[in-house]
Amino acid sequence: MLKKRPIIIDTDPGIDDALAIAIALFSGELDVRLITTVAGNVSIEKVTRNALRLLSFFGKEVPVAMGARKPLIGPLVDASDIHGASGMEGFDFPEPREDLLLQENAVNAMRRVIMASEEPITLVPIGPLTNIALLLSMYPEVSEHIREIVMMGGSVTRGNKGVMSEFNIATDPEAAKIVFDSGIPIVVATLDVGLKALVMPEDTQKLPDLGQVGQMAHCLFRKYRGGSFNTGLKMYDSCAIAYLLAPTLFETVDTFVDVELAGSLTKGCTVVDLKNYMKQPANAKVCVDIDGEAFRRWFLESVGKCI
Amino acid sequence: MLKKRPIIIDTDPGIDDALAIAIALFSGELDVRLITTVAGNVSIEKVTRNALRLLSFFGKEVPVAMGARKPLIGPLVDASDIHGASGMEGFDFPEPREDLLLQENAVNAMRRVIMASEEPITLVPIGPLTNIALLLSMYPEVSEHIREIVMMGGSVTRGNKGVMSEFNIATDPEAAKIVFDSGIPIVVATLDVGLKALVMPEDTQKLPDLGQVGQMAHCLFRKYRGGSFNTGLKMYDSCAIAYLLAPTLFETVDTFVDVELAGSLTKGCTVVDLKNYMKQPANAKVCVDIDGEAFRRWFLESVGKCI
Amino acid sequence: MLKKRPIIIDTDPGIDDALAIAIALFSGELDVRLITTVAGNVSIEKVTRNALRLLSFFGKEVPVAMGARKPLIGPLVDASDIHGASGMEGFDFPEPREDLLLQENAVNAMRRVIMASEEPITLVPIGPLTNIALLLSMYPEVSEHIREIVMMGGSVTRGNKGVMSEFNIATDPEAAKIVFDSGIPIVVATLDVGLKALVMPEDTQKLPDLGQVGQMAHCLFRKYRGGSFNTGLKMYDSCAIAYLLAPTLFETVDTFVDVELAGSLTKGCTVVDLKNYMKQPANAKVCVDIDGEAFRRWFLESVGKCI
Amino acid sequence: MLKKRPIIIDTDPGIDDALAIAIALFSGELDVRLITTVAGNVSIEKVTRNALRLLSFFGKEVPVAMGARKPLIGPLVDASDIHGASGMEGFDFPEPREDLLLQENAVNAMRRVIMASEEPITLVPIGPLTNIALLLSMYPEVSEHIREIVMMGGSVTRGNKGVMSEFNIATDPEAAKIVFDSGIPIVVATLDVGLKALVMPEDTQKLPDLGQVGQMAHCLFRKYRGGSFNTGLKMYDSCAIAYLLAPTLFETVDTFVDVELAGSLTKGCTVVDLKNYMKQPANAKVCVDIDGEAFRRWFLESVGKCI
Repeated sequence: MLKKRPIIIDTDPGIDDALAIAIALFSGELDVRLITTVAGNVSIEKVTRNALRLLSFFGKEVPVAMGARKPLIGPLVDASDIHGASGMEGFDFPEPREDLLLQENAVNAMRRVIMASEEPITLVPIGPLTNIALLLSMYPEVSEHIREIVMMGGSVTRGNKGVMSEFNIATDPEAAKIVFDSGIPIVVATLDVGLKALVMPEDTQKLPDLGQVGQMAHCLFRKYRGGSFNTGLKMYDSCAIAYLLAPTLFETVDTFVDVELAGSLTKGCTVVDLKNYMKQPANAKVCVDIDGEAFRRWFLESVGKCI
Repeated sequence: MLKKRPIIIDTDPGIDDALAIAIALFSGELDVRLITTVAGNVSIEKVTRNALRLLSFFGKEVPVAMGARKPLIGPLVDASDIHGASGMEGFDFPEPREDLLLQENAVNAMRRVIMASEEPITLVPIGPLTNIALLLSMYPEVSEHIREIVMMGGSVTRGNKGVMSEFNIATDPEAAKIVFDSGIPIVVATLDVGLKALVMPEDTQKLPDLGQVGQMAHCLFRKYRGGSFNTGLKMYDSCAIAYLLAPTLFETVDTFVDVELAGSLTKGCTVVDLKNYMKQPANAKVCVDIDGEAFRRWFLESVGKCI
Repeated sequence: MLKKRPIIIDTDPGIDDALAIAIALFSGELDVRLITTVAGNVSIEKVTRNALRLLSFFGKEVPVAMGARKPLIGPLVDASDIHGASGMEGFDFPEPREDLLLQENAVNAMRRVIMASEEPITLVPIGPLTNIALLLSMYPEVSEHIREIVMMGGSVTRGNKGVMSEFNIATDPEAAKIVFDSGIPIVVATLDVGLKALVMPEDTQKLPDLGQVGQMAHCLFRKYRGGSFNTGLKMYDSCAIAYLLAPTLFETVDTFVDVELAGSLTKGCTVVDLKNYMKQPANAKVCVDIDGEAFRRWFLESVGKCI
Repeated sequence: MLKKRPIIIDTDPGIDDALAIAIALFSGELDVRLITTVAGNVSIEKVTRNALRLLSFFGKEVPVAMGARKPLIGPLVDASDIHGASGMEGFDFPEPREDLLLQENAVNAMRRVIMASEEPITLVPIGPLTNIALLLSMYPEVSEHIREIVMMGGSVTRGNKGVMSEFNIATDPEAAKIVFDSGIPIVVATLDVGLKALVMPEDTQKLPDLGQVGQMAHCLFRKYRGGSFNTGLKMYDSCAIAYLLAPTLFETVDTFVDVELAGSLTKGCTVVDLKNYMKQPANAKVCVDIDGEAFRRWFLESVGKCI
C-alpha cells in the first residue's frame, strides 16, 4: 500500500483555496496532518471559520490552528472585493466544526506536528507566508524536518495585486523574503501557471454531476467573479496540490528567486533570475509552464474523487 | 507626392541600431533630419564613430550630433560584451564621415532642428533616454513642437539587463522617468515585441542577395552573438522604425507607464499598468504584441530597399 | 516597602550590556523576571554564554532564555570588532550558570512570564529587536499585558553602525518597524543620549574601589576600545536602566518614530518626527537629552550598590 | 589692488537669498558675473522677477538668466508657505530690471560665462541644484573651468523639509546626486551651520540704521516668519557667501557626501560620512560648525557695506 505523504496546508480560504483543500483531503495520496490559517483573502477570523466550515462539509477530521492576523509589517490589505464578504460566498455550508480548532496558534501547531512526525513534512502554503516566516524565525530547528515547501505565490512576469506583484507575496513581502532565504527546498506554483490552470465554461457545467464538492464548486464559481465564468476560472491554489499529485503537469526550472522589498512601485515583486543575472545559486524550483489541457482533466478527475 | 515624416533618430549603434538606421534612411517615407548619439551599447566616442561610418557606407548626408557620455546618474554600464569592442564588429566599414559631425551637442542640435521645423518632429530614441531627458529638462518649450516620441525600450514583463529591467531603460532610469512624465505622446516598442521581431536563419541566408545593407547585415549578424544566429536574431531597434512605417504590425494598448527608481532588485523596471491598478491616466501607447511573420517579411523587404 | 517593578531584559552582552544588567539586578527597585538573549554584538551562543557568566559572577538567580540567532531578514552582521571575540574580553569570569538556561526559547519564555504576571511587565530591550518583534507577531495577545517597552536604540540624528543608523535598529530594521508600529507605549533611550552618558577617566579610576562589579567594569573598560578610555566611555545600554530608575536624568519628547526600510544609504535610520512633518500621532517617548553630570554620579552610585 | 573672485550665484529668492545676494554684490571682493534663477522657494517666474527687483533696488548691473522651472524629476513642491506668495513680501521694491534678463537660459548662460572667463569661476548655488546638474550633464567640458562649487544645502544631521532632509537637496535630490558625483571641489554650507547663523532681535533693531539694505532686511524680516523674529532669524544662504568672504568663521571637514535617492522616508537626506563607514574618498568640504557670534558681527558689518 502506498504510503501517504504528510503535509500541512497553510491557507486563507477563499474560493480557490476551498477546491485545493478538497482535492488534497480526498486524494488518497496526501496525509493532511494540519490546516493552519493566515490572514489574506479575508480576515483571520473569517478564513479560520471558512476552514472549519469546509471540514464540516467535507466530513473530514483535520485539526485547524489559527495563525497570523496580519502581515509581519503593516496592516492587512485583503481581497474581500474578489472573494466576497465572507471569502466563500455562494454556497450554503454547514456550521463550522469548532471542535477541530486547536488552542495552539498556527506556528506552534506546525512546529509540534513537524517535530512529532517520523518523516519530514511538506508545507503547502497557499496564502501569504506570514506563518511560515514566523515558524522559521522562531524555530529554526524545524528546517531539517521539512521535506520541502510547495507554495502558491509569486510570478515570473507580472502580478495580480500590483502591476508586478502577486497577491500572496505582495501581502507579506518580508515573510516571503524570509522563506526564500531559508535554504529549505522550495517549489513555486506561480501566478503564471495559475493563469493557465483554467476551468473552462464547458468544465463548469460538468461540476454539478461530480458529487458534493463539484456542486459546491459550481455554486462558488457562479458567484465568484461573474465575468470570468465565461473565459475560464483560474485555479491558482490547486496548482500547489497538483504539483504534489501530478508534477508532470508542470515545466519547472531550478533558479534563484528574490523578493523586492524596497521598490516604490514594485514592492513584493518576485525576481525570478532565470538567466542568472544575479550570480546566485538556485534556491527554488519554479513552475514556469503547465499543460493546461492535462490540468483541466486532472482537476475534474480530482474533484470527482471528492466524495 | 507623399510628404515625408520628419524624424530625429537618437541612437547608440550597435548592430541592431545599424539596421534600424538603414531602414529609416532608405525607406522613402521618413525624413531623417538629424542623428544624435548617446552612450549605451558602447562609449559615446564609439557610437558616434559608428554613426559616421554608417552614413559613409550608406552614402547618406545626415548631420550627426554627439550626446551624453554617461547616464544622468552614475557611470555608464555598457553592453560591449554583446556588441563587441567597437559595437559593430564583423564588417569592413569605410572611414567615418567626420564632416557630418556637428559642433553642437546632441541636445542643442535637437532643439534647433525641432524649433526650425515647419511641422512637429517625431523623436525616435533607440538607446538610453539621456539626451531626450536633457532636452526636455533644458528646453521645455520644445514639447509642443514634438509630434511624438517613438522609442525602443522598456518591457511589459521581464528584462534583458536585469531580471525585470530592459537595457535602454535600466541604463538611465531617471532619464526614462523624465520622458514618461513629460506629457508628450509616447509610443513604446517594448522588449516583449523585440523578442518576437526575429530574423530567422533562413532569412539570414537571403541577406547577401539583398544589396549592400543586406551584405552588411549578414556580416554583422554572423559575428554577433554566434549562438543566436540559429534561433533567430532579435531586431529590437528596427521595431521602432517598423512602428513608423508599418504600424499595423503591432498590437498596442494606451496605458500608464512608470519607471521604478527605488527598487534594490528592480531599479529600471518599467511598470506598465495594463489593468490600471495605479489609477493614473494613460501616458503611452505600448506595443504589447507583434505579428512576427509579417515583421520578417517587412524587414527583408525593407533591407532590400536599402540601395 | 516599595513594590519592585517587574521587567524582562532582552540583551546581547556585550560590555555595556553587562553594566546595565548589573545595575538592574542590584538596584533593589527592579524585579528582573527573565533575561532573554538575542544575536547582536556577538553570536547568540556567545551572548547567551555571557549572560550566564554574568549571573554566575553576580550570584543572581534569574532564568535565561535564548532567542533569535539572526535578524528577521538577512544574516547577522555583528560588532565583534568592538566587543572582542567573546563579547566580554578582559575579565576572568566564573563558569556560566548553565542551570539557569531555560529549555524554552526567548519568545515563549517572555510570553509565559508576561501572561503569568499579576501586573503588566516592562520589556527592556538593549539589543536588536528581533525577539520583541517575534513576540508581538506570534502572540499579539501579550500587548495588553505589557506596561511599556523601554529600549536602547535608534537616534534622533546620526548613527553608529551606518552614517544615519544606530547599531540595534540597523541590525534588524524590520523588527524595529514591527515594534514601533505595535501601539504599545515605548520609551527610546537613543544613541544621542548614549553619547552623552559618559564614564570619564577620573570615574574609571574609582571603579576598582566600588566592589566586584566596579572591578569587573574596570577590567572590561580597560580592554574595551582602548582609545575611548581617555575621552569617556559611552554607557548606551545603562541609559535604558537609568530611565527606569532615574527618569529625571532625561529630557523626553512624545513624538512619532518610524524606521527607514527602503533606503539604499539610510536603511535602519530612525525617523524621529519632532516637528510633525509626517502628520502622525506620537508612538514613542524619545529621550532627546540627558544631564551628563548627573548621569555620571548616578552611574557610579549604582555600580557601588552592586555587591 | 585685490583681484575680485569671479562667481555665479544660482538662486531662488526668497528672503534669505536676498540678503546673500546683497552682501555678495556689495562686498568688493566678489565679481558677480551672472545671476541664474531656479524654481525652489517659489516658482521660476517669481524668483526671476525677485532677482530683477533686487538688482533694481541695489542699483547693480548683473545679467540674469532664468533656469529650471521644476526639479529634474517630479513637480516643484515650493516653500511659498514660508516665503510668502511672492517670495519676498514685506518691502516695497522698485520695478524689476527686465533689461537685465538674458534671452539665454540659465544653463547656457552659465556655460558661456564659465568658458569665457580667463580664470576659473566659482559657482554659488543657494537653491535647489537643478541648473547645476543640467550644466554638468549637458556640458561636462565646463568642469575644468570651475574653481569650486560653494553651496547652501544639505545637513549633517536632521532636515527642514523632511525629518532627515534639507530643503534645497530634498527639492531635487537627483540633481544633488549629480553634483556630488561630479568630481568638482565642493564646499557645503549645511543646514546645521545655518541654524547657528542667527540674526538676533537686538541685531534686527540695528538694521534700519545700516542703510538701504538694512532697511530692506528689517522690513522683510518683520514679515518673515513672525515668530522667529524673537528667537533669531536663520541666515542660511548668507552662509555660502560668508564662506567665500570669511572662511575662518567655519569649521570644515573634508569628507564623503552622498544623497539618498531611494528611501521611502529619507529621500533627499545627505549622508555625510564623517567616520568613513562607506570607505569612499572625500568629495566635499563640509561646514560642520560656525562661530555664531563672529557670524553676527560679520553679517551686520556686511549689511552695513551695502550702499
